[in-house]
Amino acid sequence: MFVRLLGLVTLALSFLVAHVPASAAIWDSVPDEQLKALKLTRDSSPKELFDQLSKRYRSELTKGKFAKYWEPIPMDMYLAPTLFYKPPAEPAIEVKREECVACHTGATHGWVKSWQKSVHANLDVIRALPESDSRAYKKGIIAEVEDNLRLQGLLGKGEPLKEVQCTDCHMGIGAKGGNHAKDLRMPDRSVCGSCHVRQFAEAESERDTAVWPQKQWDQGHPSHAVDYTANVETATWAALQQREVAASCTMCHTNQTKCDNCHTRHEFSTVESRKPEACATCHNGVDHNEFEQYMYSKHGTVYQTRGASWDWNIRLADQLGHKDGQTAPTCQSCHFEYKGQYSHNTVRKVRWGFLPSKNIADNLDHPWFKARKEAWIDTCSQCHSRRFSEEFLTMSDKGIKGGTKLVEDTRKVVQKLYDDKLLVGQKSNRPALPAPEQDEAGGFFSLFFANANQTTTVDRTFAEMWEQHVARFMKGLQHVNPGGWTYSHGWSDLVKDQAIINEQDTLLRERAAMEQRLQKLEGKGTGKTSFNGVGERSLYASISEDPVYASGGLALLGGGLLLAGLRSRRRNRDDAADLDSQQARYDDVAG
Amino acid sequence: MFVRLLGLVTLALSFLVAHVPASAAIWDSVPDEQLKALKLTRDSSPKELFDQLSKRYRSELTKGKFAKYWEPIPMDMYLAPTLFYKPPAEPAIEVKREECVACHTGATHGWVKSWQKSVHANLDVIRALPESDSRAYKKGIIAEVEDNLRLQGLLGKGEPLKEVQCTDCHMGIGAKGGNHAKDLRMPDRSVCGSCHVRQFAEAESERDTAVWPQKQWDQGHPSHAVDYTANVETATWAALQQREVAASCTMCHTNQTKCDNCHTRHEFSTVESRKPEACATCHNGVDHNEFEQYMYSKHGTVYQTRGASWDWNIRLADQLGHKDGQTAPTCQSCHFEYKGQYSHNTVRKVRWGFLPSKNIADNLDHPWFKARKEAWIDTCSQCHSRRFSEEFLTMSDKGIKGGTKLVEDTRKVVQKLYDDKLLVGQKSNRPALPAPEQDEAGGFFSLFFANANQTTTVDRTFAEMWEQHVARFMKGLQHVNPGGWTYSHGWSDLVKDQAIINEQDTLLRERAAMEQRLQKLEGKGTGKTSFNGVGERSLYASISEDPVYASGGLALLGGGLLLAGLRSRRRNRDDAADLDSQQARYDDVAG
Amino acid sequence: MFVRLLGLVTLALSFLVAHVPASAAIWDSVPDEQLKALKLTRDSSPKELFDQLSKRYRSELTKGKFAKYWEPIPMDMYLAPTLFYKPPAEPAIEVKREECVACHTGATHGWVKSWQKSVHANLDVIRALPESDSRAYKKGIIAEVEDNLRLQGLLGKGEPLKEVQCTDCHMGIGAKGGNHAKDLRMPDRSVCGSCHVRQFAEAESERDTAVWPQKQWDQGHPSHAVDYTANVETATWAALQQREVAASCTMCHTNQTKCDNCHTRHEFSTVESRKPEACATCHNGVDHNEFEQYMYSKHGTVYQTRGASWDWNIRLADQLGHKDGQTAPTCQSCHFEYKGQYSHNTVRKVRWGFLPSKNIADNLDHPWFKARKEAWIDTCSQCHSRRFSEEFLTMSDKGIKGGTKLVEDTRKVVQKLYDDKLLVGQKSNRPALPAPEQDEAGGFFSLFFANANQTTTVDRTFAEMWEQHVARFMKGLQHVNPGGWTYSHGWSDLVKDQAIINEQDTLLRERAAMEQRLQKLEGKGTGKTSFNGVGERSLYASISEDPVYASGGLALLGGGLLLAGLRSRRRNRDDAADLDSQQARYDDVAG
Repeated sequence: MFVRLLGLVTLALSFLVAHVPASAAIWDSVPDEQLKALKLTRDSSPKELFDQLSKRYRSELTKGKFAKYWEPIPMDMYLAPTLFYKPPAEPAIEVKREECVACHTGATHGWVKSWQKSVHANLDVIRALPESDSRAYKKGIIAEVEDNLRLQGLLGKGEPLKEVQCTDCHMGIGAKGGNHAKDLRMPDRSVCGSCHVRQFAEAESERDTAVWPQKQWDQGHPSHAVDYTANVETATWAALQQREVAASCTMCHTNQTKCDNCHTRHEFSTVESRKPEACATCHNGVDHNEFEQYMYSKHGTVYQTRGASWDWNIRLADQLGHKDGQTAPTCQSCHFEYKGQYSHNTVRKVRWGFLPSKNIADNLDHPWFKARKEAWIDTCSQCHSRRFSEEFLTMSDKGIKGGTKLVEDTRKVVQKLYDDKLLVGQKSNRPALPAPEQDEAGGFFSLFFANANQTTTVDRTFAEMWEQHVARFMKGLQHVNPGGWTYSHGWSDLVKDQAIINEQDTLLRERAAMEQRLQKLEGKGTGKTSFNGVGERSLYASISEDPVYASGGLALLGGGLLLAGLRSRRRNRDDAADLDSQQARYDDVAG
Repeated sequence: MFVRLLGLVTLALSFLVAHVPASAAIWDSVPDEQLKALKLTRDSSPKELFDQLSKRYRSELTKGKFAKYWEPIPMDMYLAPTLFYKPPAEPAIEVKREECVACHTGATHGWVKSWQKSVHANLDVIRALPESDSRAYKKGIIAEVEDNLRLQGLLGKGEPLKEVQCTDCHMGIGAKGGNHAKDLRMPDRSVCGSCHVRQFAEAESERDTAVWPQKQWDQGHPSHAVDYTANVETATWAALQQREVAASCTMCHTNQTKCDNCHTRHEFSTVESRKPEACATCHNGVDHNEFEQYMYSKHGTVYQTRGASWDWNIRLADQLGHKDGQTAPTCQSCHFEYKGQYSHNTVRKVRWGFLPSKNIADNLDHPWFKARKEAWIDTCSQCHSRRFSEEFLTMSDKGIKGGTKLVEDTRKVVQKLYDDKLLVGQKSNRPALPAPEQDEAGGFFSLFFANANQTTTVDRTFAEMWEQHVARFMKGLQHVNPGGWTYSHGWSDLVKDQAIINEQDTLLRERAAMEQRLQKLEGKGTGKTSFNGVGERSLYASISEDPVYASGGLALLGGGLLLAGLRSRRRNRDDAADLDSQQARYDDVAG
Repeated sequence: MFVRLLGLVTLALSFLVAHVPASAAIWDSVPDEQLKALKLTRDSSPKELFDQLSKRYRSELTKGKFAKYWEPIPMDMYLAPTLFYKPPAEPAIEVKREECVACHTGATHGWVKSWQKSVHANLDVIRALPESDSRAYKKGIIAEVEDNLRLQGLLGKGEPLKEVQCTDCHMGIGAKGGNHAKDLRMPDRSVCGSCHVRQFAEAESERDTAVWPQKQWDQGHPSHAVDYTANVETATWAALQQREVAASCTMCHTNQTKCDNCHTRHEFSTVESRKPEACATCHNGVDHNEFEQYMYSKHGTVYQTRGASWDWNIRLADQLGHKDGQTAPTCQSCHFEYKGQYSHNTVRKVRWGFLPSKNIADNLDHPWFKARKEAWIDTCSQCHSRRFSEEFLTMSDKGIKGGTKLVEDTRKVVQKLYDDKLLVGQKSNRPALPAPEQDEAGGFFSLFFANANQTTTVDRTFAEMWEQHVARFMKGLQHVNPGGWTYSHGWSDLVKDQAIINEQDTLLRERAAMEQRLQKLEGKGTGKTSFNGVGERSLYASISEDPVYASGGLALLGGGLLLAGLRSRRRNRDDAADLDSQQARYDDVAG
């Protein structure tokens, strides 16, 4: 009987769900892969979607597999509030919804003013816009949010949403007030996602669509949706003893934990989030310097010289088509688009990630990569001919392959020096790294640890080569910045790395030979070297591009592969044996 | 009889030409040097000018003297369309003039929208502007274009130009249509120049006015007018096996081949082309970083802070004088101006080019250089006192001379190491470079080739010094960016290069000496060294600034000069014997 | 009798002064420390304040303690006009006040136009503004200037100031004309300060409020008010023989000498001076790169994406509070503010200066530092919670301490190599530096001198570490630019420096040991080494973080301290013995 009753209730509920307004159906921008992963169908309701999303979101937001190696610092409370936020002890008062603004106008007028400028504080201003206003589309978004809230029982049928105020985000949606010392919260993605279910789903769908055919990257990586996990599961990060230094990495790896990396609190300006600078804080610098590459490209210079004449209130999806919209793309134009649809899944066309690898270079003919290249051609073809678009992408891929080859050639030289124990101080002055980090030739750690001879010129140079310079090379090509891929950065950097390492190879082997000769003269046996034990026969024994100089190379190759296999096991992965240390880095850092 | 008739026709034609509207006379901005080079006079017609210009333009646009060493990649079709463009095979249809926009609004809406915003699509909008509008001057330009077309028989007498549409540029001016698979073309400078004869002539006049009195650079170099030639005739570029990498160089070296490096298709916005960012894609980075230097100068910061309040529609020539115009210069203000006149010849005041050299430093008192300095003083004196302008330019020249001396001092150290065969791996592990590139000490190739020990620390450091750092030093001075010439870049970079090379000099000579001592102990003769043959007496034998440390320097000097002479011959030039390898680079790269 | 009369006159004058309008009292923004230093009280008049300020200002503006080592170049006339300006010989004519503009409109139209746009040329335009105009506050400033001028007898009672014209600044306030070849002057701070007494006093008060409790920096340093002195009293600067190179340093170190580094002549736009780019010319680059750090921070990206919608005419003090004002801070918002008041004293909250040091790191619990931290919390709390603000500042301090420790650890390695005379060429090829510079291990000079082996890799790397990279690290933290303190720059740079130096330490000691072994084999005694005299026992003898590798470290420590003591005496300072060479640099460069 009870079961039957339950069945009826369920039926009634599902009936109810089926009759929510049309706008509350599952949106087209939610990909099938995500629905499948969440065990939902296209007939599910936005409420079910939200419930499943939030549940998964919170369960996967943890300190990660290296949790025992690091402790949060106070600032982490703001970077990963779901995990670490605690309300402040003072003031320990009960506050009413309507009191926040008055009090904080005195205490923190800056954030109050930003909020007052936001749509959150001006819903009726939006509702009153004429259809001719380029912001009029926001009326539809408000209606969508109201539908979401009604489905979740947070807004009455026919009741309009009056405003979005401090307590809604910082205590509970619709909360009338609470205890300042107990009930305050810092919103995470799921709090913003309660109202903005569609955007939450789109952003979270990066976990589901980034499934690499040869497991070049872990599922969902690299993406904003898992960037916090990628950060905390990087051995180098967990091993860093200066936690205030490690915090800098976390600062960017917090798209998983909150939404205001792009939608700066408390104005949450869509105009801001549509401009390239919104991406600049994280996407600049020594490796994935997309911002600089873009700004120096013709795309970027048109933005800089003409952008002030564009109407930035036009919805992103309409910008390129609108007479008052952009005449050049921004980061958002290309990376939020997929087959003509714009969403918060920024990785649906990703083919290389933020680091090229041999395993991608070797598989570009696989249908997965070809389909994504086609999707890119669609994107570029909005403003270029299809032939131009295809030829540019083909050139870019070939270029990246060339850069990847330089890295792989040089990796062999580095690995052989390491295997021969010829790096400076390697035998006597290279202390172990703090756990969970472990030694390897030119690993990611080389950029952050330099006690005694933990990091030599060879290590550092190679770490910069595979982790920074080849990425910058690729980003230069992909963002059409001429100086960025050959001359100012990119190829020229890679060749410099190669030159340094080849020179070190010669010097270190000559030095070893000289040591042996000295020992012989001193009457010591060749087996009793004082700081290295490689004889004259090893001179110029490493692999170089030119076969004339590559004697000894083949023997090394097997060793290199073996070592790579060992590394991949150490990191508890089941990748193919040709996974190298660069690949291992993907697992850790990828975001 | 026939001859007489021909004579009459010619007379009639010349009469006709003599009676074209006043605006169709040869413009003042066309320099005498150009008319002379084209065998024209100031009484020639714009049509004759265009014909001669186009003929010369196309005959000099070739694959260059290294043509046999490289093959174009598909992307080259868009970079040098005159040489490589082929229409796409699909769609193989006949199209009518009026069909382009309709079809492409669907296929490539971005470029259609840009064109719709252009003057090309809105000639009547311009014609209707009141004289008070800052764009009203464009009416005169339209009239000038109409005159040009009438002279070329492309527009009827009294017939107004209605619009400039896809087919005009991509098939033929005034074409009614054509076959999409056969008749499509990509416009080069001469296509744009058919209508814009004056601008074409101005831009092309760079070939004629840049005639260096001591042949410091080849005629016309460095300039936009010959930048493609300069690119393809650089041995390093031609030798690069990764053509997608070489393509990055080409990307910027395409002002010779087309106009849209500055006038981005398809809006061709003059506002865009007047702003510094229009130059930024090419003029940034590791060497000729004019953009960064400008942006950090006070000139640039005034642009950045006040530029939004200026009316960018005002014609460049009127900007500084107009009450609503600039209050600080841009790249264009200074470099398009010559004796009060503004034109597309950007090198009429050039004195150093983009790399300083001894041969310029030693000749600044020559009238050619003095006259150009006077022209610069005129430019600066628009906003500064003449004394200030002169003192700044003098200071700048003296500074550049100082930097040049550092390079020359260091060149001797590098050359002697090379001559003594002391570079790491020089004797045994320095394979030949791909043709047409050839080995030398610290050549330009060092930035792009690093197989085995082709490039050592000494080579790379010196290549960066003479090709990048001294250029950046000069550009910092010339663009009045304090951090740019001494501290963040410039002098400090040069001194670092010098320190590295002086240290290498000491280390490599000590190493050679140690090797000799070892061999002596091993009972081998000093004549049979294993990797170098320079004895202890060579220690500290290279030249340094301080005479105390310069023993052995004079002997070297002759060798250095000899080598430079050899190099210049190898490059088929008849320069004076003091032409050094840096100079040789000018011939190749100068654009 | 005469004395009595004088007394009466004085009384009458003081009576007059006592009855100036209320607005002419000493302003709140003038700090007590300044009044005390000038022997004034809060009852003193603005005239007395101006007189005392000007007197002190001029007496302290000199060529400095290294005056005999350098001579000005012509450009210095414009950089430090008080010291070096001479009117031009031509034209040697008498000019009337009203003639300047007419003549210069022809000669230098750019500066005339800028002036015509300035408030100086439009006082009545300002006076006519309605109170609703965001520039209306300038009426009060004009009235304040009029009061100042009346007190100085330069404007009649009730007489309004009509305009500020060329002659006022360039000949004398209110001057009716003068001789162009004799009476022209270039305004310095005290000329601007005649009218703008309050701003002059605020700016000059940096001398009085920056009094470091443990003398970490000299009084008033680092600040804009003494930046010229700091420049010319830097030994490296004075020793530079290329004065055009040294001029680049001076270019920025001229806030002490004039006002137009921030208030660009001749528009003197307050809008310009409120924007971050106004600071960019000097605050960018290899060390104190605040501009880049800010621009990549969220503060900066909000400025870049939203700034165009802010009303920049709003007074700085009102920006954050005004509905049309900023929603993110600029340089000026934070650095001109102190306890809610905005003034031209930009260092009232300074705690680290532009270089961190152990002596600051060790004293952050001192009340002086704690009070300033509280003042910073007040600043940040305008837009952030107090807890967030405090935690961020605490994190920042801890981070900086960590970076400082890396520098100090590495300093010991460098110092020991220097003491052991193991640097490359140290014994035979390291010529003395030009006076007044003196040799030391990795001194500031290493960035500018590289004759022979004056600067080795160890010197240069360490100079970059303590003078550039640790500053950039600190600035990254303080300006909340994630890539700026750990990854793109900052920590990663510091660790690279450390790696290079630790590797050099190993290599140089191994090399020394090898030399000893060679000598032994050659039958020479160990006491007669040819290029260094450190035996095998020194291998790995320098100090590193890991105690296992730190044998020999304690013995070194004393030597390091002794050397530091010597240096500090050489520089005529009485600091504690733990003052190291980095500290000594503060005295010189601090501005």
